[in-house]
Amino acid sequence: MKLVFITGNLGKFLEAQKLLREFGITLEQADLEITEPQSETLEEVAEKCAQEALKKIGERFIIEDSGLFVNSLNGFPGVYSSYVYRKIGCEGILKLLTGSADRSAYFMTALAYGEPGKDVKIFTGRVDGTIATEPRGKSGFGYDPLFIPFGSNLTFAEMSTEEKNKFSHRARALRKFASWFLSRHEEK
Amino acid sequence: MKLVFITGNLGKFLEAQKLLREFGITLEQADLEITEPQSETLEEVAEKCAQEALKKIGERFIIEDSGLFVNSLNGFPGVYSSYVYRKIGCEGILKLLTGSADRSAYFMTALAYGEPGKDVKIFTGRVDGTIATEPRGKSGFGYDPLFIPFGSNLTFAEMSTEEKNKFSHRARALRKFASWFLSRHEEK
Repeated sequence: MKLVFITGNLGKFLEAQKLLREFGITLEQADLEITEPQSETLEEVAEKCAQEALKKIGERFIIEDSGLFVNSLNGFPGVYSSYVYRKIGCEGILKLLTGSADRSAYFMTALAYGEPGKDVKIFTGRVDGTIATEPRGKSGFGYDPLFIPFGSNLTFAEMSTEEKNKFSHRARALRKFASWFLSRHEEK
Repeated sequence: MKLVFITGNLGKFLEAQKLLREFGITLEQADLEITEPQSETLEEVAEKCAQEALKKIGERFIIEDSGLFVNSLNGFPGVYSSYVYRKIGCEGILKLLTGSADRSAYFMTALAYGEPGKDVKIFTGRVDGTIATEPRGKSGFGYDPLFIPFGSNLTFAEMSTEEKNKFSHRARALRKFASWFLSRHEEK
């Protein structure tokens, strides 16, 4: 089964491609121009992006929005994680946590599935963990060098894609989606 | 002459009301629900918000977007100043500047004027200055306690509205707008 993943982020695409292959789903990347709305929840961003994508694409697809939420920073950088990363990077997050005893954080993904003529469906995935005291590792992208998921001593950037997919928010959302997608397909 | 200012921010409204009164323009506040697009320029945000407002309002109006751009932080918090303020506040900006020799910054406003059946018109205003080493003053809102405009030793939050209007980005954009608006009116 083929499916399109609308994303300009190759790292995200490769993670999703590897994971969905286990479910027999072949993923193709499409880098469509989608205007993200300002919104305070990932679900709303994913939903609106999917609605916009449905106007531009004639086949079924997934599109997602993810963010890092640091508890002692009131959930910053949250839905604007990507913008904040481009501006102040991992170093900025570490500076903001200087002197903070609470380094707990979570990553979250809202994944939207779109199909022409059908309602958009949203799947979420979340992983809790802590923020490292310095960036570690070279794999992945974004804040991966900072995030240590519960159950590991490694940051996401110190893990292989397979290892990251055991823990990650995106992998959790993708698994929920894949189970639903395949069961729906079997019913037909 | 009457005009509507679409904003949920009372501080912005009061500044603009005081300034435009000098031009004989009576400002009224309207707190419409407008979805701000994610965008990397204030002009684009103001333009798109005005386009959306035109669908909801049958009279002429102004709407604006402003941001603080810190040079050594690559322009952070920029177009997401309001979100970042709610999450990490003035203290967050000060932490990010710890150890930074360059504390230069600017505030910018993009003001959109909308009128049913007409193209949206954009006016910008900018003020350069520096970031104080600690928050000072109680007036204004947002990052005002941090920002010292060139030509003063006070932060915006240590100034009266009249004093802030001598320097501020918003006042500069409003003056450009008011001159244009009145000259256009006289032509008729």
